[in-house]
Amino acid sequence: MLEVVAGVDIGGTSIEIGLVDRGGTCLSRDALVTTDFEDPQEFVTAAHQTIGRLVEATAIRMTLRGIGIGAPNGNYYHGSIEFAPNLAWKGIVPLVDIFKRFYRVPVVLTNDANAAAIGEGMFGAAKGCRHFIVITLGTGVGSGIVVNGDLVYGHDGFAGEIGHTIVDPNGRQCNCGRRGCLETYASAGGIKRTVFELLAHSNTPGLLRSRSYEELTARDIADAASQGDAIACEAFEITGRILGLKLADAIAHTSPEAIILYGGLAQAGDLIFEPTRRYMEHFTLNIFKNKVKLLPSALPQGLAAILGAAALVWSELEKTD
Amino acid sequence: MLEVVAGVDIGGTSIEIGLVDRGGTCLSRDALVTTDFEDPQEFVTAAHQTIGRLVEATAIRMTLRGIGIGAPNGNYYHGSIEFAPNLAWKGIVPLVDIFKRFYRVPVVLTNDANAAAIGEGMFGAAKGCRHFIVITLGTGVGSGIVVNGDLVYGHDGFAGEIGHTIVDPNGRQCNCGRRGCLETYASAGGIKRTVFELLAHSNTPGLLRSRSYEELTARDIADAASQGDAIACEAFEITGRILGLKLADAIAHTSPEAIILYGGLAQAGDLIFEPTRRYMEHFTLNIFKNKVKLLPSALPQGLAAILGAAALVWSELEKTD
Repeated sequence: MLEVVAGVDIGGTSIEIGLVDRGGTCLSRDALVTTDFEDPQEFVTAAHQTIGRLVEATAIRMTLRGIGIGAPNGNYYHGSIEFAPNLAWKGIVPLVDIFKRFYRVPVVLTNDANAAAIGEGMFGAAKGCRHFIVITLGTGVGSGIVVNGDLVYGHDGFAGEIGHTIVDPNGRQCNCGRRGCLETYASAGGIKRTVFELLAHSNTPGLLRSRSYEELTARDIADAASQGDAIACEAFEITGRILGLKLADAIAHTSPEAIILYGGLAQAGDLIFEPTRRYMEHFTLNIFKNKVKLLPSALPQGLAAILGAAALVWSELEKTD
Repeated sequence: MLEVVAGVDIGGTSIEIGLVDRGGTCLSRDALVTTDFEDPQEFVTAAHQTIGRLVEATAIRMTLRGIGIGAPNGNYYHGSIEFAPNLAWKGIVPLVDIFKRFYRVPVVLTNDANAAAIGEGMFGAAKGCRHFIVITLGTGVGSGIVVNGDLVYGHDGFAGEIGHTIVDPNGRQCNCGRRGCLETYASAGGIKRTVFELLAHSNTPGLLRSRSYEELTARDIADAASQGDAIACEAFEITGRILGLKLADAIAHTSPEAIILYGGLAQAGDLIFEPTRRYMEHFTLNIFKNKVKLLPSALPQGLAAILGAAALVWSELEKTD
């Protein structure tokens, strides 16, 4: 019997579910549409059917050892999703308790960035590292901090919000209600804001002057920078400077061996890695210089979230097995 | 036989040595003059004699269970003092190895702020807390971060340098060679620099206009603020704003239950605690608001460093006892 866990990644538009073995191979997967479920109970019923179908559908006989869930605003201690702005399920959703009506195996939940960090540590770029940080550069900026091989959940389960450390207390408006969070600079939307500031500030002509704010994507900015567009290149330089500065602060907290950049903006490759690495070294305290690796994710692109959620429960099982 | 450890605190001017039992009582103590020892070997010989004398001198029969050392730039993993700017002992000093020529009991070393954190956790304001941060506001700004009951040493043993997170990359010159570190604002010297900026910026008369930069101390500023001096009061407000901002960043990293302020500037009491607490709450992400206690040290004033060093080795012994 092959031992597997179900990795469940809950996003604003889709919910990915996959069966993953202890080595990090995803044997089968399926997806649900998040907005199909007005109620979390309906979702769990559907997820239970999906997992059952996936277990039955493969030729290999499998035992389900546990369920790991990555979700926005997921709280590991409470097993709940708490006030997630991008989900229709409002307030505190005790998702682990609902899952436990269907399962006797361990069910574990955390936020998506934490799941990504555990995934990188078990199957990806941080394999073998005991001290590392994963930063997700997507619509927002998330982070998961690992110290001594364990994810840092903190006193309340919400630790690891480097995206909401403050770059400039008088800076850009953030969705969190404050101003100047790292997320407003180093996310997909953040680099777009930087481009629009640069378009306003200079007269430099360029590819991005024809695009509306609504149209423009981080991918467009990366494409323009690859073609040598001056505004796009400067936007990556500025983004790397700000991200590098805050990563230097993060290093001063937990002194990691590696920092892994993950998510949409990280796919811009050297455009974002080169300036971020340069400024991170520039702003880092001398005792930490040339010690911290800045690495891309090593999880397969479309599978990273499922593998992260699966790694979350595998890591719990390892503590008891 | 009463079990005790020796707590050794190495400072730039004096070295404090005390015998401490498991409950945190310091039974006897002595001090050496740091500059008397050109060579660390001479110091260890003298420390060995001092500890021996302290053990013999008391009426109670004692067993020495270990030696804990707090020292500037102390590295826990290497057991060494590394490039400490305020000590005559240059380069890497393998102090634990030198002590082990005299002792078979465990000898453990870390930096002074980390020792303070372990001391607060075992005997002081953070007793019973599993997630907390100690910030030392003295000549410099040090910090010790505790996660899940364990001090965070990081990959290289140098984690917990919140004093060298950056407030303003174009800001004040720091002794570390960079600019704008928290230490240049929130230390005893930092608040003095703020006073001098305010004296230059405004025409407000006040008690501090008669003092030279060399003369003025943080204590003088606190005294002036207590008498309602406008410049001194504003300096505490600004210091609290900057410290509160960076503590909000620290909360976003490890989500502690409490932050403890320790050291000279923390003795200004409400003058520093009130604005720091107010701005920390103001700048903290909503999920962390009204959760984190900002507390003064609860270790006896002159004994804190000895108790911290002693707690360091008691905490090691607890792992094996």
